[in-house]
Amino acid sequence: MATKYVDLATVKFFMNQVQEAETVLDKERYQDHDSASVDLFIESVKQFADKELFPYFKEMDEKPAYHKDGSVVVHPQVDKMMKQGGELGLIAAPFDYEDGGLQLPMLVHTAAGYILDAANNHLPGYAGLTSGAAELILEFGSKALKESYTPKMLSGEWGGTMCLTEPQAGSSLSDIVTKAIPTDKGHYKINGQKIFISGGDHQYADNIVHLLLARIEGAPAGTKGISLFVVPKNRVTDSGELVPNDVTTVADFQKMGQKGYCTTHLGFGDKDDCQGYLVGEANKGLHYMFLMMNGARIAVGRTASAIASGAYYASLEYANERPQGRKLSSDGTKNLNQKQNLIVEHPDVRRMLLLQKAVVEGGMNLIFKAAKYYDLQHTAQDKTEKHKYHSLLEMIIPVVKTYPSEAGIYAINNGLQILGGYGFCADYILQQYYRDIRICAIYEGTTGIQSQDLLGRKMMLNNGEGAQLLLAEIQQTLDAALQIPGLEIWAKQLGEQLQRTQEILQHLVPFAMQGDFERFLADASVFMEFFSLVLIGWSWLEIAVVAKRALITGDTTHDATFYESKLETLEYFFVYELPKTKGLAEVLLHPSAVTIKKEKELIQ
Amino acid sequence: MATKYVDLATVKFFMNQVQEAETVLDKERYQDHDSASVDLFIESVKQFADKELFPYFKEMDEKPAYHKDGSVVVHPQVDKMMKQGGELGLIAAPFDYEDGGLQLPMLVHTAAGYILDAANNHLPGYAGLTSGAAELILEFGSKALKESYTPKMLSGEWGGTMCLTEPQAGSSLSDIVTKAIPTDKGHYKINGQKIFISGGDHQYADNIVHLLLARIEGAPAGTKGISLFVVPKNRVTDSGELVPNDVTTVADFQKMGQKGYCTTHLGFGDKDDCQGYLVGEANKGLHYMFLMMNGARIAVGRTASAIASGAYYASLEYANERPQGRKLSSDGTKNLNQKQNLIVEHPDVRRMLLLQKAVVEGGMNLIFKAAKYYDLQHTAQDKTEKHKYHSLLEMIIPVVKTYPSEAGIYAINNGLQILGGYGFCADYILQQYYRDIRICAIYEGTTGIQSQDLLGRKMMLNNGEGAQLLLAEIQQTLDAALQIPGLEIWAKQLGEQLQRTQEILQHLVPFAMQGDFERFLADASVFMEFFSLVLIGWSWLEIAVVAKRALITGDTTHDATFYESKLETLEYFFVYELPKTKGLAEVLLHPSAVTIKKEKELIQ
Repeated sequence: MATKYVDLATVKFFMNQVQEAETVLDKERYQDHDSASVDLFIESVKQFADKELFPYFKEMDEKPAYHKDGSVVVHPQVDKMMKQGGELGLIAAPFDYEDGGLQLPMLVHTAAGYILDAANNHLPGYAGLTSGAAELILEFGSKALKESYTPKMLSGEWGGTMCLTEPQAGSSLSDIVTKAIPTDKGHYKINGQKIFISGGDHQYADNIVHLLLARIEGAPAGTKGISLFVVPKNRVTDSGELVPNDVTTVADFQKMGQKGYCTTHLGFGDKDDCQGYLVGEANKGLHYMFLMMNGARIAVGRTASAIASGAYYASLEYANERPQGRKLSSDGTKNLNQKQNLIVEHPDVRRMLLLQKAVVEGGMNLIFKAAKYYDLQHTAQDKTEKHKYHSLLEMIIPVVKTYPSEAGIYAINNGLQILGGYGFCADYILQQYYRDIRICAIYEGTTGIQSQDLLGRKMMLNNGEGAQLLLAEIQQTLDAALQIPGLEIWAKQLGEQLQRTQEILQHLVPFAMQGDFERFLADASVFMEFFSLVLIGWSWLEIAVVAKRALITGDTTHDATFYESKLETLEYFFVYELPKTKGLAEVLLHPSAVTIKKEKELIQ
Repeated sequence: MATKYVDLATVKFFMNQVQEAETVLDKERYQDHDSASVDLFIESVKQFADKELFPYFKEMDEKPAYHKDGSVVVHPQVDKMMKQGGELGLIAAPFDYEDGGLQLPMLVHTAAGYILDAANNHLPGYAGLTSGAAELILEFGSKALKESYTPKMLSGEWGGTMCLTEPQAGSSLSDIVTKAIPTDKGHYKINGQKIFISGGDHQYADNIVHLLLARIEGAPAGTKGISLFVVPKNRVTDSGELVPNDVTTVADFQKMGQKGYCTTHLGFGDKDDCQGYLVGEANKGLHYMFLMMNGARIAVGRTASAIASGAYYASLEYANERPQGRKLSSDGTKNLNQKQNLIVEHPDVRRMLLLQKAVVEGGMNLIFKAAKYYDLQHTAQDKTEKHKYHSLLEMIIPVVKTYPSEAGIYAINNGLQILGGYGFCADYILQQYYRDIRICAIYEGTTGIQSQDLLGRKMMLNNGEGAQLLLAEIQQTLDAALQIPGLEIWAKQLGEQLQRTQEILQHLVPFAMQGDFERFLADASVFMEFFSLVLIGWSWLEIAVVAKRALITGDTTHDATFYESKLETLEYFFVYELPKTKGLAEVLLHPSAVTIKKEKELIQ
């Protein structure tokens, strides 16, 4: 097994120097933290991951979670993740002091989560969903709900989940049917089935607190009739006791990857004794849930990028150790008396390494940027600023979730290839990364859903104001890069992409104006691929500006090779990846409507 | 589990109408066969696959082959594949009558193999490698070797393998070290280790006949000192008895996919009693092996395309049954009183279906074409013709092997996505196809090796004569398409790609002329991706010419929808896939040499 899964120096570089953590730490909310304390926190997280997560990564794949006698049995490290992780603050980090939180910026929390995910992506979700569920209660729940449920969630004694998906509805939340029937005792009776509930049950939590979407009897059809409920596995009685709340663990889905992270099918109210407690107002459930969705989507993008990080270092280690083949000499022959070369010296292997590094780090920096926008939104002093950062976050979130998930598959596919036949073998770890990452393009809104969100909603946000705000941010990076020798060429190339984006929108938006939404959104996934490359190009240019300045000013936070390596990877991205936009633009501008159904079914 | 894995009508259409099987069947060698008898053979293979292969596909993944007490235990259907398959002629099909063969064209054998691979890719390899091993003996072995070993191989009683890879050498065959020490009894003593030996051992074969590469003591270094040996697991004594031949089954590699097809580690001569019998002349082993390699590479491409075919039909079936979401009406809202749409009606799902169909069928037709070239080469009456078809086969073989393997991953990735969360779950079959296909880009020369072969050797073949021959073939299709209303536009688009290929070669070849082979071949994999799209574009145009003619002439071999569906898929390929050549060309023409190692190591 490989020994490295993440580059701590890169995590700190992106957090501190590129995303300038200090501009966030300067906010009053974070006055108890500074760069030094935050670095210490990150280092303690790395030590925890080294000790309690990474060594169990392979084992958790080989010994999957399973359903037995009505409950789910998970690997013992889940207990460590929740309790020790809870103590470290990995669940409570972003919350207010008064709620038991650490008031750490999301930027720092995201950097910490990245390290955990890279070490072992089967574990952090247990803590992450508990954090997300607690956030919903803290943000919108009653005082009583907060007091009864969140303290033990934040400490890791209890778990938390999000219960959205139902068998008949899938991604289409309009069609969920789980019922909530009012009673005269203040609570609701819940009845329904939820599937794909991550962390839905396990033997190490005394209780699991489900945040569940359901329809109150008589509510309007569609998404406007969905309410949010706290539905605990065990409800807390007035005397503080825990009694079973008629929540049944029906099954644990067996999966291709991420096998240690259980995925449950839950039944609610089989015996007509399942109590649910309304969170906030009736029929606003989806609205509340979606306020939390940006955090969840940052987390999925983070997980995907982190899994690809683990795969990158595993394949790099192999490439640096494996001798095979020889370079051709200038007459086209090989000198067989020479020792074999290490495969890291072969250009094709280097291409596959640079590709991975470009995907992993370009994604990581954009993910950290999203977390920074999140912090700047949440700490903004005035409405305009809050609106600005909220808009910026909304604009990039579909890409933050999708690019690492989709390009991560492509990256790991190349990492696996570096190992040749060994890459396909169970004794080597690449095949596990390859399987694990595949879920990320499905979690929290599939790529198709994200793409419709990006093109159909985000690009149109406030009549294009969101797009303008984002453009202004990118322009700042372009302006900076244009001033730095060696970066102008890439800045110009990225500028052309912005122009091309404009052309594409001018071609597509008229379809929406004419009411032909099917045609407008038919190629949303292609637009996602296109626009992701633009944003990751921006991310790399931003990294390069800071790296190049560090080299020019002789900044010694990292050594020169570290910065030069970033510039090398930027060059790879701009030479090998960004040109893909050309073909994608051609698709988007093409008059063909071949994917739209005709009267006769021609797909057979 | 899905019910369909291959479209028999399409297999027959490509074999009979597009590749014009009759032009092959007209050759004297095949005089006992005609279109009708060949169709019957293909149908019997389909029935065999329906009954003995497809029903065990999932089970063979769930109960992998394993090593126990020095041998490998495989699924009972391996026995059916070998014995019943042997009876059906699935091992003997291409060989001469006098050797016990059926004298069927490779085109027909390939169509049959395609069906088997699509039904259950864990099984046909046992027969396929036995066929390949027998072919080497029949082609280059002594009369005694033929008589002792091949009859029972062709009947499926004995297995056969190819033993090339060694742990320290991997893809670099120059570095193999397995020893062959001459004795005064005519045989050699073999000593060494071979890994990744598919079908290397199992409980259903009385014997396994290994075709093994080794170095005779004192042979020249590198590939010029490699000889080919028959090394049976049990040797045949003069009296016809079988006695153990000191071949040890050290291990069975556990893998991410294709788990029912064992992958063994074999030891030869641990007790200094392993006899090997030289095939043909000493030091010509690699030459012999590579004469068989085109067949092996057709087989890998065929397997990959066939696996993607299974995945395509499984995802199509799901899309035709799963209701989810609703189309937007012209005011951008959804009518919640409407029933949910089937997901096959959503453009993004249709895109993912067309993508799969384009990859699967575009690849299938090119694979069949390679098999036809093989037949035309082997039945050619004069040297010029033989040379022509040999050259054409050599030109396309790297793409025939690689495109289905690489694009097949991409296709199945999209098939899995159609199922959303279910695609990731073990209860659904998509995840198995996703895992199984991954080995194809590694088998029989990785994509990196194939790409170096394509750019470094094939594009240069006989000073470009090979490329000219191929160009003339493509031009024929272009000329035909230019005459058919509705196809001109695609023909022109493909013509531009040929122009672009020329430009790329004019940019790259000078590096080779200057002796800078590293630079010349640095982007060989990118060239492979580029050129694959060109050849698959050609394949689709060829299909379209026949389909369109059938529609115009009212040919009723298939119904009109069948032909229209092919034209629809052509349009998808030309609109969505072929434009990727633009970005790839930009990469290939870029002056950057970022993947070539500099003095300082910048990949970290």
